[in-house]
Amino acid sequence: MDNDTKEMFQSKFITFEGTEGVGKSTQIQHLEKYLKSKKIKTLITREPGGTVIGERIRELLLDTNISQFDAITELLLMFAARAQHLEEVIYPALHNNTWVLCDRFTDASYAYQGGGRGVPFSQIKVIENAVHGNFTPDLTILLSCKLNTGMKRVKSRGLKDRFENEQQEFFERVQQTYLQLAKQHPNRINVIDANKSVKQVTSAIRKAVKKRFPDLIA
Amino acid sequence: MDNDTKEMFQSKFITFEGTEGVGKSTQIQHLEKYLKSKKIKTLITREPGGTVIGERIRELLLDTNISQFDAITELLLMFAARAQHLEEVIYPALHNNTWVLCDRFTDASYAYQGGGRGVPFSQIKVIENAVHGNFTPDLTILLSCKLNTGMKRVKSRGLKDRFENEQQEFFERVQQTYLQLAKQHPNRINVIDANKSVKQVTSAIRKAVKKRFPDLIA
Repeated sequence: MDNDTKEMFQSKFITFEGTEGVGKSTQIQHLEKYLKSKKIKTLITREPGGTVIGERIRELLLDTNISQFDAITELLLMFAARAQHLEEVIYPALHNNTWVLCDRFTDASYAYQGGGRGVPFSQIKVIENAVHGNFTPDLTILLSCKLNTGMKRVKSRGLKDRFENEQQEFFERVQQTYLQLAKQHPNRINVIDANKSVKQVTSAIRKAVKKRFPDLIA
Repeated sequence: MDNDTKEMFQSKFITFEGTEGVGKSTQIQHLEKYLKSKKIKTLITREPGGTVIGERIRELLLDTNISQFDAITELLLMFAARAQHLEEVIYPALHNNTWVLCDRFTDASYAYQGGGRGVPFSQIKVIENAVHGNFTPDLTILLSCKLNTGMKRVKSRGLKDRFENEQQEFFERVQQTYLQLAKQHPNRINVIDANKSVKQVTSAIRKAVKKRFPDLIA
């Protein structure tokens, strides 16, 4: 999708990013409620996943029985799910005047497969261009909290997936990469301090959304 | 893997290509027997597949219950399986002085996702470079037969997969693309007339292999 097409969307594509247990799911739901109260049609979706094919890819990616994942394989699977998600869910929703709130998107590929696994950013960029060209989120909410806090939340959920089983150093690299991306894209990526209470985080996100789209949200 | 590394392999990477029912499986087994008789260690493998992850991706790709596959998703899944296959099976075997006989490889991505589905070759090239750089087969055997003959063989096998369910025009485009690739890479791709008897085809393949590797096969 080229930029001209994108400019036609009145509806917006908002992504949520952050390491495990940072509170993305909760905050996406709170933002959805808020947008609905403003009479904005919204759709919540997630990556990897969001489609029948994507959820099958997700199962494979998170399978703890598989230990031998090549980093490029992981990257390509993420983008395979993403390509399907864009064509089947995200583009149609945006065309249909619906705002899309997405739990993780391409920034996560840079953070996890790039920062975490060491795939060169240049290689990720090439795949990104092939899959969604100039199409990028209108706003990205990066929830940032102390890794220990997040991991405690993950532990309390019970069984962990293949990513959640990674070591502390992995998540530190992921977190650092997310913050680096935020510096590179200060207009798009909004870093929100997720160490605060749920209520405070919800409020900070609303403020960021209103600031980014002042004409659309009264 | 760069070209220097590749030159170090005494062992060879031979791929088999062609449309459905063209006799690849049978001919790969015949070539393996022949190479073994020459005291050459060989490994037969296939794409998509060849690893635990690859076979899971294969299942998804061939699933007839899924009709909505985006062409780029299909392409990325093929290359995801390929990346895993290279790291886990193909490179280690070649390093271990074993010749690898592979049922389909990257030419199939150009033929099926490029010619068949209409993904631009330039896009496939970009993904190919990201996954295996300059590494290419030492020899490719392209089995070429009348489409009707091949489809009759597929029918006689019983249940068809998602690709085998495609229409005649799809396979004609795949076939044309294969022949076009053979013209572009005349030194690597050897077109073998697969309308002939199994015995004649086996003999033509042996001749092609001996001609390509005269110093290695007495």
